[in-house]
Amino acid sequence: MIGKALAKKIRAGERVYGTCTVSPTPVWVNAIATARPDFVFIDTEHNTLDRSQVGWMCQTYSALGIVPIVRIPSPDPFLATSTLDDGAMGIVAPYIETVAQVDGLRGAAKHRPLKGARLKERLEGKSVSTEIDAYINKHNADNVLIINIESQPAIDALDDLLDAPEVDGVLIGPHDLSCNLGIPEQYDAPEFLAAVQTIFDKAREHERGAGMHFWGGVDQQVRFLEMGCNFMIHSADLLLVRDHLTSELNAIRARMGDLPQGEGGPSLTI
Amino acid sequence: MIGKALAKKIRAGERVYGTCTVSPTPVWVNAIATARPDFVFIDTEHNTLDRSQVGWMCQTYSALGIVPIVRIPSPDPFLATSTLDDGAMGIVAPYIETVAQVDGLRGAAKHRPLKGARLKERLEGKSVSTEIDAYINKHNADNVLIINIESQPAIDALDDLLDAPEVDGVLIGPHDLSCNLGIPEQYDAPEFLAAVQTIFDKAREHERGAGMHFWGGVDQQVRFLEMGCNFMIHSADLLLVRDHLTSELNAIRARMGDLPQGEGGPSLTI
Amino acid sequence: MIGKALAKKIRAGERVYGTCTVSPTPVWVNAIATARPDFVFIDTEHNTLDRSQVGWMCQTYSALGIVPIVRIPSPDPFLATSTLDDGAMGIVAPYIETVAQVDGLRGAAKHRPLKGARLKERLEGKSVSTEIDAYINKHNADNVLIINIESQPAIDALDDLLDAPEVDGVLIGPHDLSCNLGIPEQYDAPEFLAAVQTIFDKAREHERGAGMHFWGGVDQQVRFLEMGCNFMIHSADLLLVRDHLTSELNAIRARMGDLPQGEGGPSLTI
Amino acid sequence: MIGKALAKKIRAGERVYGTCTVSPTPVWVNAIATARPDFVFIDTEHNTLDRSQVGWMCQTYSALGIVPIVRIPSPDPFLATSTLDDGAMGIVAPYIETVAQVDGLRGAAKHRPLKGARLKERLEGKSVSTEIDAYINKHNADNVLIINIESQPAIDALDDLLDAPEVDGVLIGPHDLSCNLGIPEQYDAPEFLAAVQTIFDKAREHERGAGMHFWGGVDQQVRFLEMGCNFMIHSADLLLVRDHLTSELNAIRARMGDLPQGEGGPSLTI
Amino acid sequence: MIGKALAKKIRAGERVYGTCTVSPTPVWVNAIATARPDFVFIDTEHNTLDRSQVGWMCQTYSALGIVPIVRIPSPDPFLATSTLDDGAMGIVAPYIETVAQVDGLRGAAKHRPLKGARLKERLEGKSVSTEIDAYINKHNADNVLIINIESQPAIDALDDLLDAPEVDGVLIGPHDLSCNLGIPEQYDAPEFLAAVQTIFDKAREHERGAGMHFWGGVDQQVRFLEMGCNFMIHSADLLLVRDHLTSELNAIRARMGDLPQGEGGPSLTI
Amino acid sequence: MIGKALAKKIRAGERVYGTCTVSPTPVWVNAIATARPDFVFIDTEHNTLDRSQVGWMCQTYSALGIVPIVRIPSPDPFLATSTLDDGAMGIVAPYIETVAQVDGLRGAAKHRPLKGARLKERLEGKSVSTEIDAYINKHNADNVLIINIESQPAIDALDDLLDAPEVDGVLIGPHDLSCNLGIPEQYDAPEFLAAVQTIFDKAREHERGAGMHFWGGVDQQVRFLEMGCNFMIHSADLLLVRDHLTSELNAIRARMGDLPQGEGGPSLTI
Repeated sequence: MIGKALAKKIRAGERVYGTCTVSPTPVWVNAIATARPDFVFIDTEHNTLDRSQVGWMCQTYSALGIVPIVRIPSPDPFLATSTLDDGAMGIVAPYIETVAQVDGLRGAAKHRPLKGARLKERLEGKSVSTEIDAYINKHNADNVLIINIESQPAIDALDDLLDAPEVDGVLIGPHDLSCNLGIPEQYDAPEFLAAVQTIFDKAREHERGAGMHFWGGVDQQVRFLEMGCNFMIHSADLLLVRDHLTSELNAIRARMGDLPQGEGGPSLTI
Repeated sequence: MIGKALAKKIRAGERVYGTCTVSPTPVWVNAIATARPDFVFIDTEHNTLDRSQVGWMCQTYSALGIVPIVRIPSPDPFLATSTLDDGAMGIVAPYIETVAQVDGLRGAAKHRPLKGARLKERLEGKSVSTEIDAYINKHNADNVLIINIESQPAIDALDDLLDAPEVDGVLIGPHDLSCNLGIPEQYDAPEFLAAVQTIFDKAREHERGAGMHFWGGVDQQVRFLEMGCNFMIHSADLLLVRDHLTSELNAIRARMGDLPQGEGGPSLTI
Repeated sequence: MIGKALAKKIRAGERVYGTCTVSPTPVWVNAIATARPDFVFIDTEHNTLDRSQVGWMCQTYSALGIVPIVRIPSPDPFLATSTLDDGAMGIVAPYIETVAQVDGLRGAAKHRPLKGARLKERLEGKSVSTEIDAYINKHNADNVLIINIESQPAIDALDDLLDAPEVDGVLIGPHDLSCNLGIPEQYDAPEFLAAVQTIFDKAREHERGAGMHFWGGVDQQVRFLEMGCNFMIHSADLLLVRDHLTSELNAIRARMGDLPQGEGGPSLTI
Repeated sequence: MIGKALAKKIRAGERVYGTCTVSPTPVWVNAIATARPDFVFIDTEHNTLDRSQVGWMCQTYSALGIVPIVRIPSPDPFLATSTLDDGAMGIVAPYIETVAQVDGLRGAAKHRPLKGARLKERLEGKSVSTEIDAYINKHNADNVLIINIESQPAIDALDDLLDAPEVDGVLIGPHDLSCNLGIPEQYDAPEFLAAVQTIFDKAREHERGAGMHFWGGVDQQVRFLEMGCNFMIHSADLLLVRDHLTSELNAIRARMGDLPQGEGGPSLTI
Repeated sequence: MIGKALAKKIRAGERVYGTCTVSPTPVWVNAIATARPDFVFIDTEHNTLDRSQVGWMCQTYSALGIVPIVRIPSPDPFLATSTLDDGAMGIVAPYIETVAQVDGLRGAAKHRPLKGARLKERLEGKSVSTEIDAYINKHNADNVLIINIESQPAIDALDDLLDAPEVDGVLIGPHDLSCNLGIPEQYDAPEFLAAVQTIFDKAREHERGAGMHFWGGVDQQVRFLEMGCNFMIHSADLLLVRDHLTSELNAIRARMGDLPQGEGGPSLTI
Repeated sequence: MIGKALAKKIRAGERVYGTCTVSPTPVWVNAIATARPDFVFIDTEHNTLDRSQVGWMCQTYSALGIVPIVRIPSPDPFLATSTLDDGAMGIVAPYIETVAQVDGLRGAAKHRPLKGARLKERLEGKSVSTEIDAYINKHNADNVLIINIESQPAIDALDDLLDAPEVDGVLIGPHDLSCNLGIPEQYDAPEFLAAVQTIFDKAREHERGAGMHFWGGVDQQVRFLEMGCNFMIHSADLLLVRDHLTSELNAIRARMGDLPQGEGGPSLTI
């Protein structure tokens, strides 16, 4: 029940630490596990992973006691359910803004196998039977539900979005949020930090996890943790490689007088 | 003809820089390309890559002008040839110690499509015809052949191994070499450094690339370059992620008083 | 035209037998074929299969004369169509409850390449031309359409759902149905059996296949067949392995006094 | 910026040439590149390709300077975005008929990372800030958006569909169009040619690319080009193989008196 | 150190139980784990598994505490080593008959990273240094080495083959053995059973695991255990499915009067 | 028994026709099947195919009644056997020159499961028992063995190579043969044609299939058939696409005045 334990922790305000990983090769798991993360964030929104690759990653991480949490490409309830069936123990739904989106997801993550009209009744608070209530609670106990908050409209609606008790936490997507606020990639701007603070505060008021996926240095990450973040996704394997490889290779070349001219490769989206 | 150009450079003593990459996901290429390496080292000896994954990696890197060099799991001439057919522009043959091994590889990398008795004649210096000589030289012009030197017996035989003009360079595997010398993982030990110096010196005497795959810091890498290394494989994506993730996550946790007890994950072989 | 023949059989009340298979390995096909099923049920709703794996399974089974029927993860018409293009000869749409869902699916399975406004007209009974009518009928002749009936609301709507002549059969998902009825996994409960009987009866009244996917023993399966089931999916490779391996291994261990303590692995959803 | 350059060309009325390719094997790229196409059309609507296979194809073609344009199976904005993230430089959306469909796609292809309410405002012409306007334009500059026009209703709505400035071109799907017109596969019928002419004319009036995917002989293709087509997808690897293999093998067999009796294999949909 | 613990057990004469699994799908692991095997036997000699599929299976099973043991297609030391690098904790080498074969394998499984001349010295009993001895022992501690005994010549040579202390156990391949003895598939024949007894006895005399891969009923398996087998591979997922599906489906059909005529599918080799 | 039937035909001098296919996508099979080949030649020597992809191709083609014959990358008996286990019905062994190579292969293809010393005896003509003789003959009845003859030394040894009754046919690799003769790619040269004639004649004298893999036009192919070829591999999907796409696209562009300058893509090896 490591999914359940993680959900309980972030609701209680304890801090958990993870990283984003998108490399679908078996031995990679050992490299990530060395850092002893509490969970991994497998992002299928921006990364080219096949269903079976995600399934294997989830199975292996969960067997190692590291909670596999998968971001799906769209807030589609069917996709959330099949991803959980494949072995994910948590779902991050991208760019959530409306209660209707949350309703689809909380059904998918926490009330299966109910669907259709019966699920609608249950989401409205009607019970089928005490037996089925117990069954569903047990069946879905290990599923974590996280929603991405990445816009001003989502911040404005956050109290309503967190009305749903099934949402275990929120996750800030800083790139999208900064663009939505009109200050692209300005992660130190006061408006950006204020928006982050509001999201963290509301999450904690509602006793949900306050999450951030960021790729900054130690000081920046500590700042977010001190602002209330307790579900920290530190960087991504893809970004760690890009940034450290570039910086180290350039440092070595510079020492030897071999620095190449011009600019590097294409940009990457997270 | 980027393979040919790279071979020419390392024979001439110019320095080239690369990294080891083992992550078979399309978007990863962009992260590596950002660092503008001259080549990538795709190690299939210690890493779980399918043939089609290696083929795609090779095709994409070579299209980007980054020379894909693949280490094959054994010094098997058939494997060398099929890997070149799949798109590799260079082969690293692991743990070479004898002239017979080199003979198999130089045939596979530089004299295809000749095989069997005819190839044997050609390796012994007999020409089939001037027409076929020209044809074969053109057909194999872009293929780079590198041999791993990882033992005292290989050092002792190095002059003979480099008699073959087809060998474009040598590559030190420091882990295996240190074990072979009886000083496992002691990369600063005088005996280790002396062995490295001997290999670099002999490679340069024979006007071949002097290669090192190492995962040290800038100072260590510069030391090897100053010792004569001119084919530098800086670290590996797998190791960069493992080491920087562990170090950064621990630094963040330490600042927050959240450092976990005990040790990290399983070891990794390069 | 093995898809067409199967649809004709189940509409006529003849019995056909299949199994669920989710193992994407080429030689597996031989193991399944040994049992001479009329069709296979490839469930991508709950199982981690890539598109190309499903495509290969479909191509191989259909070449062997075994009809490949695929359950898609959601009742999405686009997914139904692309799955048929990949080689499936039948679609099982999960959890159907409304006529609107059926309309999307019957268009996708039986009226391609018409789409959009023109398809809407055709579903309403308007003909484009006799030529195009003949063309479409021929083009889609081998496609089987099955809808999953897994809830009381679906039973209540069943006459309407079967108004669409394109639906070749219904399939009971007993796990979801039992939960929907408030009696989870109580497959011998009178309410459950009554619901099953109703579904079978209505299907046969409308001259459609009466399907059941169940993993019971011979007696249980015969009971369903005697109740009117004529589209029988007997168990699944995954379940046959789990149950027989556990039971046989435990029997052997028990005989040797080696039975392990504690409980077995995680649960599986079908 | 090869995507941007291609979009600029087809808007300006210059002709570009490509082919459809669906074979996911690395060395295949070399066969296609030999013909020096300006772009490739990777059709995932009718072909069994995994996400990672499409990603590798896109990365390799774009590295070679050949624009990878992917047809997605449905006009789903989330799928358009994730396909672009995977490396596609252009999206073909199948069977477009309504302005609402176009709105979803132009947001996905040209205004990311904006989503939700903010995107809706932007699509309605409201600016978040000049800074974010510049950022978004740069971020999406290389993305090409093409819509499939395959029906009379789409032709009727074409002026409205092309109101959106983000649509870089239209693409005729002749098979679907001929069926929609009630004249299946009658590609020389006057009604068919008239519909094609209308689409080309409207596309050029609006200064967008006029596209056709057809598998005809040189004369047929030249006819379409002379009618105004300037975005020509010539056949498909799958069709070239089927047709030339059948024709050549039959010619050889006929010469030897070995022609087999009966008919060939199953039909293929493009 | 679950590999080490398993090797210790079988050397000590304790019984361990496993099964053969060849289905490369993530969720399958849960079905196998339900039976709580001590180890799994992943056979790549007769089954179509890609390197990455085997790698994922190994990583997941070992994370679950179930020792992954892989049969490689040939007794190739390079293949043994790379399979261990991919995550296997044990190697079964097929059809071993000579001491030279064993020498290649014990080097590959228990003395890496030594290779070549240095390894030869070590296999002959020469020590490089106490430091390197300790290093190598630790590095290879978790690797299990099993050799397939499948012929009369192997039985005749068994004492010599077991001279090598690195061999942790022997495994009878009953199909090959019965053919080698001239009594194909006669698993109850006295000659067959006598050969089995000899192999078990010799293995236990040398204090190594006495292994059998067989697909019989409980009585047959108990017989082998009582004869001394203590490394029992009970059947295979492929065989369990084939046999139980065929038998159950036929039983059901027979009850309904629907038994098909003729024979089943192609044969399967284990 | 379609493999057995094909072997019987080519031994009897009847003509069979196939093509080379290297595209691992399920729907591709339909394109190839349209041409009604007797067999397909799946070349894994020069093409990047994973083991599971080859397995699926073999399973699907054999289910369609088209004999799948796989060229393995080296004349390795273990590889021949595992490829047959994966579903191939025939093996083409590349570049055969010696009787020792043939001995390895005829054991692997026609005498399994015998191996080692027992196999050696059997290859020397000793029988284990009449029972095992019958068993082995039945077990291997459907396996076709073809050897590539691609050199003068092989021609010189051909009578000896064909002494082995297990060899069902020879296959000329014209590219390698022309290079070996010192006349690269001169497929109309008298020396080349004389060598081809010798090979065909010897094959037919020994009552074995006389095979040629060539990518010429109808006239060239007919010439080879008239010279005695009766196992004709006509071109390859890869080559058909490259050549016809280039030629058609250039013809269209030329008509429009749009022919690009310069040369096409990289070369391809068959």
